[in-house]
Amino acid sequence: MHSNPNPELEPAAPIELDLSQDVAMLTAQLMDIESVSGNEKALADAVENALSKYAHLQVHRDGDAIVARTTWGRAERVILAGHLDTVPLPTAPGARGTVPVSWEGETLYGRGATDMKGGVAVQLALAASVVDAARDVTFIFYDHEEVEGSKSGLGRLFRNCPELLGGDFAILLEPTNGTVEGGCNGTTRYRVRTRGVAAHSARAWMGENAIHAAAPILQVLADYEPRTVDVDGLAYRESLNAVRIAGGIAGNVIPDFCEVEVNYRFAPDKDVAQAEAHVFELFNGFEIVRTDGAPGARPGLNHPAAASFVATVGQVPKPKYGWTDVARFSELGIPAVNFGPGDALLAHSDDEHVTADAIRECLATLRRWLGGE
Amino acid sequence: MHSNPNPELEPAAPIELDLSQDVAMLTAQLMDIESVSGNEKALADAVENALSKYAHLQVHRDGDAIVARTTWGRAERVILAGHLDTVPLPTAPGARGTVPVSWEGETLYGRGATDMKGGVAVQLALAASVVDAARDVTFIFYDHEEVEGSKSGLGRLFRNCPELLGGDFAILLEPTNGTVEGGCNGTTRYRVRTRGVAAHSARAWMGENAIHAAAPILQVLADYEPRTVDVDGLAYRESLNAVRIAGGIAGNVIPDFCEVEVNYRFAPDKDVAQAEAHVFELFNGFEIVRTDGAPGARPGLNHPAAASFVATVGQVPKPKYGWTDVARFSELGIPAVNFGPGDALLAHSDDEHVTADAIRECLATLRRWLGGE
Repeated sequence: MHSNPNPELEPAAPIELDLSQDVAMLTAQLMDIESVSGNEKALADAVENALSKYAHLQVHRDGDAIVARTTWGRAERVILAGHLDTVPLPTAPGARGTVPVSWEGETLYGRGATDMKGGVAVQLALAASVVDAARDVTFIFYDHEEVEGSKSGLGRLFRNCPELLGGDFAILLEPTNGTVEGGCNGTTRYRVRTRGVAAHSARAWMGENAIHAAAPILQVLADYEPRTVDVDGLAYRESLNAVRIAGGIAGNVIPDFCEVEVNYRFAPDKDVAQAEAHVFELFNGFEIVRTDGAPGARPGLNHPAAASFVATVGQVPKPKYGWTDVARFSELGIPAVNFGPGDALLAHSDDEHVTADAIRECLATLRRWLGGE
Repeated sequence: MHSNPNPELEPAAPIELDLSQDVAMLTAQLMDIESVSGNEKALADAVENALSKYAHLQVHRDGDAIVARTTWGRAERVILAGHLDTVPLPTAPGARGTVPVSWEGETLYGRGATDMKGGVAVQLALAASVVDAARDVTFIFYDHEEVEGSKSGLGRLFRNCPELLGGDFAILLEPTNGTVEGGCNGTTRYRVRTRGVAAHSARAWMGENAIHAAAPILQVLADYEPRTVDVDGLAYRESLNAVRIAGGIAGNVIPDFCEVEVNYRFAPDKDVAQAEAHVFELFNGFEIVRTDGAPGARPGLNHPAAASFVATVGQVPKPKYGWTDVARFSELGIPAVNFGPGDALLAHSDDEHVTADAIRECLATLRRWLGGE
């Protein structure tokens, strides 16, 4: 029994995690602890409790984030990071992505299977078992990754205890199907607007049609040929898309306003200001405002620690397209990559799943690299 | 006192209208009787009561519509028609278009001043005073003009008592600033749609953008040069406009659907099917559906009765652009024109007003024509 029928009277004892068990079984145990964003406490308690038993780790807690560090005095330090939270449980009748998990043969189904309880289990197994290595290691487990960036537990850690987070190279154990995905694209959003003059549509010539005036905006988007940009040896594919359009208020009124929302995903050779300059130039002459912006991250694969890791994985690294927390490390000058078990395209789906072998192979690769085997 | 505190116990006596008073004063009296669509009964009662007192008129009632006819046995019959209802009263604080009316000098402000209590007052004054003429006359006062066409009191009269509505030429006393406006444009609406494939906008190349695919639709609209078509000597100006556009569901999703609503207003040389064929040809290759359609009306000014009326007015006739009930007469083969006091552009506005002289001049012109003076 893990649950406490009356938490007001008596704090629940943390759930006991066995970090020495098979890492796929450990993943299943983590998935059984519901940890939708904002509800990470039970899992954070269990992680803190389990890691505190190891003398080679210094364990620090901030809210529902846990930092565990080795202090071997090595010249270099690497960071292994992962988030504890998941998106909400599926609500569709019969969906498999629920708590508790289910096994089908050697495949584990349920919320968090891909994103990213497998990665967290690998972090925990490594933290427990790697008691000596060529580089010091910092393990970070954090809350609130699946919600707006201002709530991010990783962002809070950087503000509250930056001294615990220094390092030469970081690996985020987000799902990458076991290959190294470096850096990430940045993202910006814009509103491109046209204005006209309203009139009754029976006397259309008394007005000016703002929707018609948006034709060149859509033509720019339709004609645009997105670039693929080489950054540190990886090819980043960009994109420029209308994600929304709206105009008009009634079936007999000439519309006096039309708005196109545009999303520009840009390679990490540019910052947000350069991305904005590119989009403003494309829509030169139109009213335009930027509403959102997050920088990308360079892959940083030329760093020696990164290079040795890529050599250990033994596969050609790929670029990461979606924005991930590697960008937070990148902003602080720490090169970072994604490397974890499971298929990112299954993340957040009702069909989220991961194979036991994918988790075990990820663990074996990281243990080989850390241990210098 | 016009109001009846308990209408269930005792029917209210009709409001007494003096049809021999100055026609501008009669207009003000009509405006004081609130008659928003669906609430025409008090005004219909007053009209029926007033007309029933004249021996030269046969009066018929259908719901809240009144038909009053002379039966002089003339070879030709003309129809003078107008609606009793108004759009809802203004709700803005301080708006003048309310009940009761207000005078500013010789200008009458209030709901219905333009649309169309002045015209109704002219009909009533003529019905009372023209006791002999070269043509028989049918006066029609009807309900539910300002709402959906299926509720139209005129449409109901055509269904319930077509034998009372025959005629050679009809005049609708809708506001035209005292000139003759002939016929009207038809109107049709369409949905032009594009479809794509949804995808996360970080991997836009996995999808197909339906908003980008709408660029040629807007370009067709922007490039379109609307025609001006001569029909029976009047120049009808057409128009083709997007009145609404919508696409996209979220800031990070490639939209799989976009829809443009298009309004085509077409000259009365075409029917709805011909208008549709023209629009379908313009958007050939796109998914398109017609959602609305009402035919226009030819001006019919080559009819002798119409020609003599135009000669009496003594001004060059103009085409009517907005759809009006002349189209209902036109569908039955009765040529019809609009001719009434007030500016159509003020109709439905909070600033609705009409001058006393405009109403008096309209009455004088029609009396001169009917009386053969």
